[in-house]
Amino acid sequence: MPDTHYTYLSRVNSPDDLKKLTTDQLQPFCDELRHFIIEQLAENPGHLASSLGTVELTAALHYVFNTPDDKLIWDVGHQAYAHKIITGRRDRFSTNRKLNGLSGFPRMSESPYDAFGGGHSSVSISAALGIATASKLRGERRETVAIIGDGALTGGLAFEGLNNAGAANTDLLVILNDNHMSIDPNVGAIKEYLLSISTSKHYNKAKNKIWEWLSIAPRFRRLLQKTGNALKQGFLQQSNLFESLNFRYFGPVDGHDVKLLTKVLRDLREIPGPKLLHVLTVKGKGYRPAENNQSIWHAPGKFNPETGERLLGNQQLPPRYQDIFGETILELARQDNRIVGVTPAMPTGCSLNIMMEQMPERCFDVGIAEGHAVTFSAGLAATGLIPFCNIYSSFMQRAYDNVIHDVALQNLGVVFCLDRAGLVGEDGATHHGLFDIACFRAIPNLILSSPLNEAELRNLMYTAKESGKPFLIRYPRGHGEGVPLSTSFEQLPIGKGTILREGKDVAVLTFGPVGNIAARAIARAETEGVSVFQADLRYAKPLDEELLHTVGQRFNRVITIEDGVIHGGVGSAVNEFFNAHGYTCHIEMLGIEDQFVEHGTIAQLRSLCGYDEEGIYNKITQKS
Amino acid sequence: MPDTHYTYLSRVNSPDDLKKLTTDQLQPFCDELRHFIIEQLAENPGHLASSLGTVELTAALHYVFNTPDDKLIWDVGHQAYAHKIITGRRDRFSTNRKLNGLSGFPRMSESPYDAFGGGHSSVSISAALGIATASKLRGERRETVAIIGDGALTGGLAFEGLNNAGAANTDLLVILNDNHMSIDPNVGAIKEYLLSISTSKHYNKAKNKIWEWLSIAPRFRRLLQKTGNALKQGFLQQSNLFESLNFRYFGPVDGHDVKLLTKVLRDLREIPGPKLLHVLTVKGKGYRPAENNQSIWHAPGKFNPETGERLLGNQQLPPRYQDIFGETILELARQDNRIVGVTPAMPTGCSLNIMMEQMPERCFDVGIAEGHAVTFSAGLAATGLIPFCNIYSSFMQRAYDNVIHDVALQNLGVVFCLDRAGLVGEDGATHHGLFDIACFRAIPNLILSSPLNEAELRNLMYTAKESGKPFLIRYPRGHGEGVPLSTSFEQLPIGKGTILREGKDVAVLTFGPVGNIAARAIARAETEGVSVFQADLRYAKPLDEELLHTVGQRFNRVITIEDGVIHGGVGSAVNEFFNAHGYTCHIEMLGIEDQFVEHGTIAQLRSLCGYDEEGIYNKITQKS
Repeated sequence: MPDTHYTYLSRVNSPDDLKKLTTDQLQPFCDELRHFIIEQLAENPGHLASSLGTVELTAALHYVFNTPDDKLIWDVGHQAYAHKIITGRRDRFSTNRKLNGLSGFPRMSESPYDAFGGGHSSVSISAALGIATASKLRGERRETVAIIGDGALTGGLAFEGLNNAGAANTDLLVILNDNHMSIDPNVGAIKEYLLSISTSKHYNKAKNKIWEWLSIAPRFRRLLQKTGNALKQGFLQQSNLFESLNFRYFGPVDGHDVKLLTKVLRDLREIPGPKLLHVLTVKGKGYRPAENNQSIWHAPGKFNPETGERLLGNQQLPPRYQDIFGETILELARQDNRIVGVTPAMPTGCSLNIMMEQMPERCFDVGIAEGHAVTFSAGLAATGLIPFCNIYSSFMQRAYDNVIHDVALQNLGVVFCLDRAGLVGEDGATHHGLFDIACFRAIPNLILSSPLNEAELRNLMYTAKESGKPFLIRYPRGHGEGVPLSTSFEQLPIGKGTILREGKDVAVLTFGPVGNIAARAIARAETEGVSVFQADLRYAKPLDEELLHTVGQRFNRVITIEDGVIHGGVGSAVNEFFNAHGYTCHIEMLGIEDQFVEHGTIAQLRSLCGYDEEGIYNKITQKS
Repeated sequence: MPDTHYTYLSRVNSPDDLKKLTTDQLQPFCDELRHFIIEQLAENPGHLASSLGTVELTAALHYVFNTPDDKLIWDVGHQAYAHKIITGRRDRFSTNRKLNGLSGFPRMSESPYDAFGGGHSSVSISAALGIATASKLRGERRETVAIIGDGALTGGLAFEGLNNAGAANTDLLVILNDNHMSIDPNVGAIKEYLLSISTSKHYNKAKNKIWEWLSIAPRFRRLLQKTGNALKQGFLQQSNLFESLNFRYFGPVDGHDVKLLTKVLRDLREIPGPKLLHVLTVKGKGYRPAENNQSIWHAPGKFNPETGERLLGNQQLPPRYQDIFGETILELARQDNRIVGVTPAMPTGCSLNIMMEQMPERCFDVGIAEGHAVTFSAGLAATGLIPFCNIYSSFMQRAYDNVIHDVALQNLGVVFCLDRAGLVGEDGATHHGLFDIACFRAIPNLILSSPLNEAELRNLMYTAKESGKPFLIRYPRGHGEGVPLSTSFEQLPIGKGTILREGKDVAVLTFGPVGNIAARAIARAETEGVSVFQADLRYAKPLDEELLHTVGQRFNRVITIEDGVIHGGVGSAVNEFFNAHGYTCHIEMLGIEDQFVEHGTIAQLRSLCGYDEEGIYNKITQKS
């Protein structure tokens, strides 16, 4: 791509610089900013479509508000690239999502303009209300703005925030960035509702009148403010969802008309209390390929910005774990009509869409609502169905209580498939799935497993559905090992691991696909004369007691390896077992030490955490 | 109280028996049922006021619906006493909440009439939607009814359920049991909204008309069904919150008019799709003392049913931990104006009401919304305030992700006070706070502590607020140890425990007030010549490494004791430490084995779990 000269963008290194532009210069600035994002992301993959959709909104916010004293809180935060670029991080933007580079999400530690960090959905209103409440208590006058998508609005946390904010008499502006999408098309009653109010001519006509009045008659505006609920009671005849929650509702407005947005935001700034501005945006705006296929262009990887061709790299890789899940659940569902699939807004991300296309009536996308996904699955299971509930490991943290209270306590046969377990790479600290083993190992009745490879994933799914018990299967982001896949299914006995290699100097116990990395490290170590026993535990709970007795009896030195936190993890479980049975062998635990892990490639992070092939090899051979 | 002859109640041992009554006999039946509940609970404490409020509703539901084939799902479930009594459990009702007796909540394992278990809030809509969806998939025609309070409706999970149900074309009846209360008066925008629609004359008049039409004109009703949204579009001019979510809204109706309720429920049964019936009830209905003070009579303990005098037992007990919390936060808040208090609908339950009365502007009851409580606290802390966020341990499971993602990852100085940590007694399996140590020990940056007694609770709160870090303090239900309380505060160095007794045969390491029980057991063991070292860890994270090195070097035998699960708990942490540092001492871990613990008194349960004084004594002296 040729070097591009940016007339306006090159002048803007801070919101103060932005404010020097005339309102007429804002749209050309936005066009350049959009071009810059496309150019950058073509080379350095990231969340393209969401960030393209918020260019004008971001520019308008920084143009109107006095950031960083006024606070912007971006829900999820992957739509905040324009925000990062405007707030002094353009020069470093090529490091986005790379090791030691910018985070792909807002981070308080990265910039004073990042008022609150993001990554998970539906957080912004609660955090913004906290910030706004603190300002009010201190008598500081500032605007606090939560920018939340219509997808994130389906998360119960967002509703809890709205319910609390609507009753608090605190200045808070919620901007609803409505593009009808989560990563996949948004679902649920809220979505239908937003669509209906966005397209109601009668309603919008009334709204437009109000905007005219607000802008031409400052005295009239002051009057409205004085009378408190006048807007609500008088002009917006159609009481709506947000007004039910005591928010003043404004909109919908065109989220790509930057001049209009600056005008609207200036007006809203004068109105106290909780208020919501409904902004209509197009995910992928201004880049035709992204507009046309918003799910794929959510995070498209590298691409040719001119042709829109995605550069998918080596197509010869083994299938992804998620696709094995997707194809296997369809296959099992064809054999067993009790099987249904549940996903909280991730049909593409977890590949449940494979089954969804064939059996739409047996697949449920419940929206961004992990807690509900689990309890809904419990309800399905209570009547004898076998739900496979697929949730990314880090998002499953949202449903911890539901797993305990609704599934495990009642011993219901829900199969949890935790995709993205372990290090996930560029998405970083908020998205790594590192806590699942530790937190779920504490729960009675729950079976906790991980496959060594994609063939085992198929068999674990089969084993789970046959078990009738709460059964959790964690597997990582990315591609399988390329092992042959059987067309039939085999039960993998619950609480039984498998010995992968005999040896006598040291025992290596692994859990999940990290066992394959260990196998390579072991092969290297063996060339140096170290004799290594390796077993894959397969089940973190229940443990393979026979196997562990063997190891406890035969070895003084044991290495455990897991793609998760060490505190309370699989190594800790083995340690508990050895202690309980009086084995005094020493365990060296590889996994995540007691710290959050930032972003980078999975390979880089695994290396930093000491359980890549080199790290394992060094541990076995005692070179580290 | 004299023996009472129950004309109708004595005949009803099942819903079938109930259906034999005439509608005119229903109110006298309800009066007897209410009397029975009062009589029973006077002697055997339980959740009085909620259950009195649902007597007529429960009778009407079982009278109209074909339970257990039609499914009733009670949200929270402490209002389900009438349900239990009608469904064949009257004879055993005196065992309610007692060891091996009936559970105080619905349990699937207890009765086929308990379609889904309860205990935690806001679960019912999600579970009911799962059950209704399964019925639909199987082509089974049944009514599925979720009964949810207006308090529980503020939980985000309920909203996630509504949002999903509103978009699903599934037959589901949600009954909103609106009594304006959680345990304390309900808060939030929803509450204000419900109040306004309940009292709107215009609205109710239109509603009543519809009811008349529905009941007198079956043909008209069928027409309404055919036209789908006719009710919504034509008759209910005032679009409301629930209609925004695509529920058909009916009500409000008088929840104590049992004949009206049966009529309404019969009508609703004919209407397909998602529908919501808004029922107005009075918490404590029919028992004057309970109606007059609903918070206290939520679960009043023993009382004289005739005089309404509560029999509070021994008033000489030491102060409760929760009151120490309440008084201490007020004291600290007076010294430091950065301190604020946050509770999700538990101001009385956690005694934040002590501060609330003095400093209402610095206390926030955010409704039943644990996730929001934590993220809101994170927002407060992001601007330099010091929130004390008090949540019962088992309810904190709802906010696991918020603690990780919003607080710990950003290293924000939120102080979490986890009341009801450990065994809680009669509330049973859903309410024990047993998983907190295991799940929170895995989280980086988080400090995890428990006081040995009420004096230490004060000092831990002070230490926490001085630390500026994410800081969790867990303490149990019930009364302190009666130790003297200082008027000043002292910092308890983070990661430092305390040696309580020197000894040489065995080391006992405790965490939290269970250390006092251990001390008594140790005193007994010493009389038999066993020399016992005891230390209180005080911090499960970071551990007192110096102390543990001492123990590791000096002892071959170590006993850890904690009021929580063993898997991944404090004993496991000590085990990890010993392993990491090459100590081979054997640890005997006392705490909760890998199973759910049912209900009974705390003393009974602790005995069953083997860490009452006797159990600890036996462990130390190796008699068990």
